[in-house]
Amino acid sequence: MTSGFEDDVLRFEAEVTDGSARAGVVHTARGSFQTPCFMPVGTRAVVRTLSPADLEALGAEVMLANTYHLLLRPGASTIGALGGIHGFTAWPGHVLTDSGGYQVFSLDPRVDDSGATFRSTYDGSTHHLSPETAVAIQQQLGADIQMVLDVCLALPASGEVVRSAVERTALWAARAKAAHSPARAAGSPQALFGIVQGGIDEALRKESAARTVEIGFDGYGVGGLSVGETRDEMLPALAAALELLPEGVPRYLMGVGDPVGMVEAVALGVDLFDCVLPTRLARHGTLLTSAGRLHIKNAAFARDDGPIDAGCACAVCARYPRAYLRHLLQVHEPTAPRLLTMHNLHWLLELVRATRRAIAAGRLDRWRAEIGAAWG
Amino acid sequence: MTSGFEDDVLRFEAEVTDGSARAGVVHTARGSFQTPCFMPVGTRAVVRTLSPADLEALGAEVMLANTYHLLLRPGASTIGALGGIHGFTAWPGHVLTDSGGYQVFSLDPRVDDSGATFRSTYDGSTHHLSPETAVAIQQQLGADIQMVLDVCLALPASGEVVRSAVERTALWAARAKAAHSPARAAGSPQALFGIVQGGIDEALRKESAARTVEIGFDGYGVGGLSVGETRDEMLPALAAALELLPEGVPRYLMGVGDPVGMVEAVALGVDLFDCVLPTRLARHGTLLTSAGRLHIKNAAFARDDGPIDAGCACAVCARYPRAYLRHLLQVHEPTAPRLLTMHNLHWLLELVRATRRAIAAGRLDRWRAEIGAAWG
Repeated sequence: MTSGFEDDVLRFEAEVTDGSARAGVVHTARGSFQTPCFMPVGTRAVVRTLSPADLEALGAEVMLANTYHLLLRPGASTIGALGGIHGFTAWPGHVLTDSGGYQVFSLDPRVDDSGATFRSTYDGSTHHLSPETAVAIQQQLGADIQMVLDVCLALPASGEVVRSAVERTALWAARAKAAHSPARAAGSPQALFGIVQGGIDEALRKESAARTVEIGFDGYGVGGLSVGETRDEMLPALAAALELLPEGVPRYLMGVGDPVGMVEAVALGVDLFDCVLPTRLARHGTLLTSAGRLHIKNAAFARDDGPIDAGCACAVCARYPRAYLRHLLQVHEPTAPRLLTMHNLHWLLELVRATRRAIAAGRLDRWRAEIGAAWG
Repeated sequence: MTSGFEDDVLRFEAEVTDGSARAGVVHTARGSFQTPCFMPVGTRAVVRTLSPADLEALGAEVMLANTYHLLLRPGASTIGALGGIHGFTAWPGHVLTDSGGYQVFSLDPRVDDSGATFRSTYDGSTHHLSPETAVAIQQQLGADIQMVLDVCLALPASGEVVRSAVERTALWAARAKAAHSPARAAGSPQALFGIVQGGIDEALRKESAARTVEIGFDGYGVGGLSVGETRDEMLPALAAALELLPEGVPRYLMGVGDPVGMVEAVALGVDLFDCVLPTRLARHGTLLTSAGRLHIKNAAFARDDGPIDAGCACAVCARYPRAYLRHLLQVHEPTAPRLLTMHNLHWLLELVRATRRAIAAGRLDRWRAEIGAAWG
């Protein structure tokens, strides 16, 4: 173990590799899940329009939930009293909680070394999030994997601002680990991941990665990417960070879920992803297909009796014609966003499973070329 | 046959009776369904928040769809081109379409003997619905059971207004039958139901029933009830109409779906029901339970880890705690109205199945008393 914890609550096993890419398994106290892994985003303890049963049927293995939103509604103590997110939602899979930082930093908070002070988007009330309270809240939420509180920037940002974010992220990471360690010593099954920042500056990414690894965590997120920069700016920064991260633990590229970005990141050695892209696109009628994006609102589909994607094995493609899905969306029936979300999530989860198969078969490069041709 | 049609596209078989109540089966070209039967309302060719697959899983056998809405969006010819509502929606059960009259009359249309002229609520465009076009549109929609265009009133209404509605409804019924007959002679499998009007005037109800039966239909709706009058006003008017309707065909009480109203109507000899009540209540957080209505938004449920109704066998009660459902509704997650709709529909469909079992066991009176005690 390089985490510095005395236990082994999270164990990563790389079953097959293809270049830097790994097809692996993550083992926790709850069970195990395969990597590469896409984690659907359940902001308020639910993936928008779906139920935990739907998510299970889709074969998702990890749900991401949002500390910021759950802290405010219904409150961490309520969820804690109901057995954590698992008891509250009846979701049997793994749960990863973000630290709340990403949402808080989008609210233009007052930030100092102690933490971030922000106003609730629900009722305007004032709240303070620190590395220590983020750990305590995620403990109440009962996540299988916690994330440390980090400083999230939108890009572009000045070098000075990026450096200061790296410094404070490192400071907070050490405090988060210190806050989390007593629970771990007492037998907590929750894992804690550190987060690498550094914008698109490769040197800063390396420095941030080295400092985070020095503190030692059960896994590592790479945050602050896919926040305004191009893919050509993102991938070298990601590669720089990954270079310094240990092989034996999961690496999580936060907030990335576009097909090309994911497959390229897997090739660099990333294991975990989350993104609102598939669910948000679905709600607006944009569907992921083997031929690229399809806009179901197009008039051309008004009498189309075919499925969204003839090559897709999801329950929606198996049953409903495009014309019906288009109609439901046009007349604002809530059934539409749900069915389209099911398709997009199925499609993206299947893309990740196919990527895993490509690694196992040693043909990841060919697979990257195929995805690039359809989606580049 | 008393319908006057030369064929037998719809056949009703009363398997068991208990007083005037019947537990029966309706046979059509599509198959068969059991009565008493509650038909969930799929206004725009979908039950709001659910999918046809959900409806199938709930054990619903007939979906009601709305001619007015489908005529305007996506248009009857579009649905016709896709194989009717069945092909369009992939719903394998029976479909009954209303004639559009109920919605059109709520829009304060210009009405004369030819029909009703109204403005679309979608785009303000002007449309005309006549007994003949209502038949033609429902033919394109491919309903298993069509309803004639009738004159729908809100109650209270003056005696003169009610009488004039009865007259025009009878005139239109004869024209609807004439318009429908050529298709029937040519082998159409679609059934056509007449509609009895007459407000809460028992004599007018009898007259309307007699005149509608004289024209002859495959079944009979009793319309214009549950539109503002009390239950004590409704039931005698219903009984008066039923007295004149033939035994050998289905009788459909339109727009009624409250537990007591349904069970009382079954006792009088009604077979079919539709109502937006269970789905609309669900979307506002009001749930049907064996102990009466439950308002899930109540703060008392914030940390309640029990199911909506411990006696309910639905998929929602089997899995999710009240606290989670309340949270999802409070933060406006679309998953909430869907799960609550599933519960309410399951609960009401189960109420109807239990009513059927009570008839079969000759204990309908005891069942009426139980429902009255919980819901009266």
